Amino acid sequence: MVNTVEATAVNTIRTLAADVVHGANSGHPGAPMGCAPMAQTLFSKFIKVNPKNPHWANRDRFVLSNGHACALQYIMLHLLGFDVTMDDLKKFRAIDSKTPGHPERGWTEGIEVTTGPLGQGVSNAVGLALAQAQLGATFNKPGFEIFNNDTYVILGDGCLQEGVAAEAVSLAGHWKLGKLIALYDDNKITIDGDTAVSFTEDVQKRFESYGWQVLVVADGDNDFEAIAKAVEQAKAETEKPTLIKIRTTIGYGSQHQGEEKVHGSPLSADDIKNVKQKFGFNPDEKYVVPQQVYDFWAKRAEENAKVEAEWNELVAKYQKEFPTEAAELKRRLAGKLPEGWEKALPRFTPSDPAVATRKLSETVLTALSDVVPELIGGSADLTGSNLTRWKKAVDFQHPSTGLGQYDGRYVRYGVREHAMFAIMNGIAAYQGLIPFGGTFLNFLTYGWGATRLSAVSHLRVIYVMTHDSIGLGEDGPTHQPIETLALVRATPNIYTMRPADGNETSGCYLVALENDHRPSVIALSRQNLPQLEGSNIEAVRKGGYVLHAEQKPDVVLAATGSEVAIAVDAAKLLEKEGLKVQTVSMPITDLFDEQSHEYKLSVFPQNTPVVSVEALTVFGWQQYSHAQVGMTTFGASGPIKDVYAKFKITPENTANVAKDLIQHFKKIGQVPELPCQRQ
Amino acid sequence: MVNTVEATAVNTIRTLAADVVHGANSGHPGAPMGCAPMAQTLFSKFIKVNPKNPHWANRDRFVLSNGHACALQYIMLHLLGFDVTMDDLKKFRAIDSKTPGHPERGWTEGIEVTTGPLGQGVSNAVGLALAQAQLGATFNKPGFEIFNNDTYVILGDGCLQEGVAAEAVSLAGHWKLGKLIALYDDNKITIDGDTAVSFTEDVQKRFESYGWQVLVVADGDNDFEAIAKAVEQAKAETEKPTLIKIRTTIGYGSQHQGEEKVHGSPLSADDIKNVKQKFGFNPDEKYVVPQQVYDFWAKRAEENAKVEAEWNELVAKYQKEFPTEAAELKRRLAGKLPEGWEKALPRFTPSDPAVATRKLSETVLTALSDVVPELIGGSADLTGSNLTRWKKAVDFQHPSTGLGQYDGRYVRYGVREHAMFAIMNGIAAYQGLIPFGGTFLNFLTYGWGATRLSAVSHLRVIYVMTHDSIGLGEDGPTHQPIETLALVRATPNIYTMRPADGNETSGCYLVALENDHRPSVIALSRQNLPQLEGSNIEAVRKGGYVLHAEQKPDVVLAATGSEVAIAVDAAKLLEKEGLKVQTVSMPITDLFDEQSHEYKLSVFPQNTPVVSVEALTVFGWQQYSHAQVGMTTFGASGPIKDVYAKFKITPENTANVAKDLIQHFKKIGQVPELPCQRQ
Repeated sequence: MVNTVEATAVNTIRTLAADVVHGANSGHPGAPMGCAPMAQTLFSKFIKVNPKNPHWANRDRFVLSNGHACALQYIMLHLLGFDVTMDDLKKFRAIDSKTPGHPERGWTEGIEVTTGPLGQGVSNAVGLALAQAQLGATFNKPGFEIFNNDTYVILGDGCLQEGVAAEAVSLAGHWKLGKLIALYDDNKITIDGDTAVSFTEDVQKRFESYGWQVLVVADGDNDFEAIAKAVEQAKAETEKPTLIKIRTTIGYGSQHQGEEKVHGSPLSADDIKNVKQKFGFNPDEKYVVPQQVYDFWAKRAEENAKVEAEWNELVAKYQKEFPTEAAELKRRLAGKLPEGWEKALPRFTPSDPAVATRKLSETVLTALSDVVPELIGGSADLTGSNLTRWKKAVDFQHPSTGLGQYDGRYVRYGVREHAMFAIMNGIAAYQGLIPFGGTFLNFLTYGWGATRLSAVSHLRVIYVMTHDSIGLGEDGPTHQPIETLALVRATPNIYTMRPADGNETSGCYLVALENDHRPSVIALSRQNLPQLEGSNIEAVRKGGYVLHAEQKPDVVLAATGSEVAIAVDAAKLLEKEGLKVQTVSMPITDLFDEQSHEYKLSVFPQNTPVVSVEALTVFGWQQYSHAQVGMTTFGASGPIKDVYAKFKITPENTANVAKDLIQHFKKIGQVPELPCQRQ
Repeated sequence: MVNTVEATAVNTIRTLAADVVHGANSGHPGAPMGCAPMAQTLFSKFIKVNPKNPHWANRDRFVLSNGHACALQYIMLHLLGFDVTMDDLKKFRAIDSKTPGHPERGWTEGIEVTTGPLGQGVSNAVGLALAQAQLGATFNKPGFEIFNNDTYVILGDGCLQEGVAAEAVSLAGHWKLGKLIALYDDNKITIDGDTAVSFTEDVQKRFESYGWQVLVVADGDNDFEAIAKAVEQAKAETEKPTLIKIRTTIGYGSQHQGEEKVHGSPLSADDIKNVKQKFGFNPDEKYVVPQQVYDFWAKRAEENAKVEAEWNELVAKYQKEFPTEAAELKRRLAGKLPEGWEKALPRFTPSDPAVATRKLSETVLTALSDVVPELIGGSADLTGSNLTRWKKAVDFQHPSTGLGQYDGRYVRYGVREHAMFAIMNGIAAYQGLIPFGGTFLNFLTYGWGATRLSAVSHLRVIYVMTHDSIGLGEDGPTHQPIETLALVRATPNIYTMRPADGNETSGCYLVALENDHRPSVIALSRQNLPQLEGSNIEAVRKGGYVLHAEQKPDVVLAATGSEVAIAVDAAKLLEKEGLKVQTVSMPITDLFDEQSHEYKLSVFPQNTPVVSVEALTVFGWQQYSHAQVGMTTFGASGPIKDVYAKFKITPENTANVAKDLIQHFKKIGQVPELPCQRQ
């Protein structure tokens, strides 16, 4: 240890981490203590951030992929001068504190992405690095490196075992994301003990197979210089991402260092005293940062502020030389959509031909591609099925491949749904881009680990999910979603969308783009659907609306997506029998829930039987309807007509269910109040 | 092409595949045509199965991991002599046919596992190979190789890109599953075009990093001998699984061979004529199998039957020498649980101490470990948290590691939830073992792609999901499930379980084990829960039951798991105010749905307000309750008490909600009929 301040700073992190976790009586001390040297090295020598302006656009991104080690991250934020006080550290894992059990984006300043669920952080980092590359290629000019930040990740064994990370790092290698640098905390310990029990692969060789540079640091506990040298070497390699395998000791300093015991529980009070003694700290003092360490970080903060100031000057010059680009840059970084963009949304009339909503989604994306240049999308190898690519799109590819450019806006994710979603989270978190991605709706649950984090961390990510029901036909039950929309609807802070025709497809994109801190799942049909009488873009903003109104209707038929046309046909059958039917389209049920009580009653009048129709599970529809036409089993393989007939999702059955329901309510002398009708 | 019959047989598969897909006007001709040589080689020279007894225990297992190529599998089943007729082939992808769009276990004889969703099949195969190794180590004796079958997989680029497969093959290497042989259809084409657009990693090197043997066949279209030689070499390597990378041409024979065009749509009628001409078939005939090809396969069927007959003789001798083991073998293969096993389930009384249901689950598993020896379980690196391991358990590990044995019954999955679930599907599909696996409930959705296939394919897989609500406290919203149980409840053919105490935990395992063609998700608390007055094991068989009954109650309080105790306390508060309260526990809502109308009304009497309490999403509870105490947002990090207080999941709030509800129904003059009360 050449530099005493450095060693003291590292040991400050270690003792503080032990105190913080002990104070909470909950948490993970081992990884923060083991990773202290790499964190100290990264933040003191490499990572450029400005605590006074955490959102500075060209800051280096740091991701703690092993989010359970967040005591480390909070301590670093405190030392760097972010808005995390010693008092906040003392409230680690307390309710509503700035220092929750895992790092939460949008809750604590300086946290780039929400981590904890393993494998997500490193995959988000691939998205952050992609965004830098894309925006750099879009905005940089000779002499004007507007976007050139690095993306740093610390990750552990757990992240390396998760499939989502395997998918994402393979893409990072393919894309040659040279500014992505991952530090692997190779401590040989997981919760179940030695990694020998389940993790014996050759990590170095695996990453090389993906096209990564792999470097090794033999003593990550003490050899700070070797860590710094490896990071330098990583920065020097511009065409490959780098993994630095750093051998560390979990819980370094504890009497149980190197054991799984220190992973997920506080050290004992006695052990902490020993740690402090070992590192030359007063064993009876808690939460100590020596003044020389604060001074060290104050100096770093000055350097950091200077770096941003220089960048601001660069941007000011850029503005003079490239006013158009600069204006666009400013708009993007402010997170504002282009003035009047929504005028580009296509509109339809009932005389327009029947078209699949996946095809209508392609029409919308094509219309928006020029108008909303921050849209960047792709598909998990189903481009021709999801119809996510506009004709003029350029692929995001390293220029050397001859297959695209870094300023391309179409992303070929391969058959990697989970990584696609996690990478989209990273792209959205970078700022300046709006990611969308396509697969079959049924495969949303291949990547739900990432989707739920889109919602938890308030990211505008658009899920373009086609083949949205048994209506996909021949591919059968393995591909026909049943439970999927119920899952999305049961999840907070995410919109579940199922447009019925062209206007509603436009309306769904309108709502998805306008909501800048919420993801949206747009479920789209494989099959052609007619343009409906009464549909319109603006009505989608209400989530659900009356397509065909009646005064005191005998029954309301409510449906979504491809089944709205079936409800309309069922209404015709019922009208022939003299019944008055109000038809309702519910493209975004969760948005309907946000409307006024009065509005809701205008859609679902009191004392009126309601039948819903949706070719997915009936589960959850009891909020809006008294009887449901839908699925209670898995689907079946066959042509669409046969499949719909087999499961009785037809106008005839809908009409019969409605008539039975009316009879039943006559018999019991009550039309039950619906949950959605209660104030 | 040395052997003419062989070449004719291969070309028969190719032309038949083109016809079958064309006949359905839907499907994937390219892969079957490209994989015909490897399928021919495997089934004619290596795979031992008996079409007359598809369930023969020691048959070789074959998995088509690229399930979209199932025209190939149906054709092979037809040629082998399974119950798939030419007429069935002509009904490819027709409704209710034996030849659905993707292969479905339990629907078509000879299909081992349901495939189609990419990455699942190869991961199932790891489970099938694990089961063989475990049962072999358990039952084999010197000279008695009862279980020594191989597991063969064909997979494509898509499977290799999926994270679930990456997780599973890493484990296969760790476990040294030498009897697992995967044939990689290396055709360089995915739906989006050339694999160069997104899949440029070095697959060979990657698999070597996992500890696999990798072999290469340069011309998989014509060099049948090289394929056979590679399989021989794979069989010779007993301590490593083998990947044989076989370079093929997708749609071999078509004018569009080697293009993505032939992947997912039928060839044109003209193209099919060309294919037939090229291969010496009559271009005007359809669905042709030359007699010499049928003869060839008839001979193979005879050999196959002989192999099983020899095995039956071996088992007969085994029975004489090892009658105890043979009786156990017979029971296992018949899928019967041991007589009286359920007597081992622990029972509790209200005076027993409060214990977390995850801990009670450990007690149950420990009690059953000796009595139900087919139980084989593990955890995705959360053993100490999930409490899935009984003390005397031996780990399933290759003996050379010194960490366990192949007859071990505890599986260390590492941090690989999705693979764990898919591997469990494979273990359950093998027969003779009942797999269970643990992780946090929130991470069920890391592997839902596999869980939904447990349900689709009727597999008895037990998901031991602990930390089942915001009650996990400090880990916060990234770890607190909200939407998860709604997802499971919305899914057909799977039981969603949330026991409230010890008796209910025993009851849930009772139902889970008794249901031999359905998976179960058991949600378990992190926190301690009291043993309830009125709970009992047998009542769990009804799914929901009355804990405390009242004649004409003023209100019913229904709850699950950790919230039942809250409902009981809320009832006490309401009783103090003179109200009569019936309390209901609903450990398995989907099982309650199966009960008689009369029984349901005994639990939820008509014209009685119902309030439900569950510390997860309220979504879906509208079937059973008029008002819900539960979650509508994500959770928060903090000590459990603070978290429950923040979200008002308390006896006090429950009592207040009940009183407000009673008032409201008085005001509107109606207690609405609940969906669960309708006949």
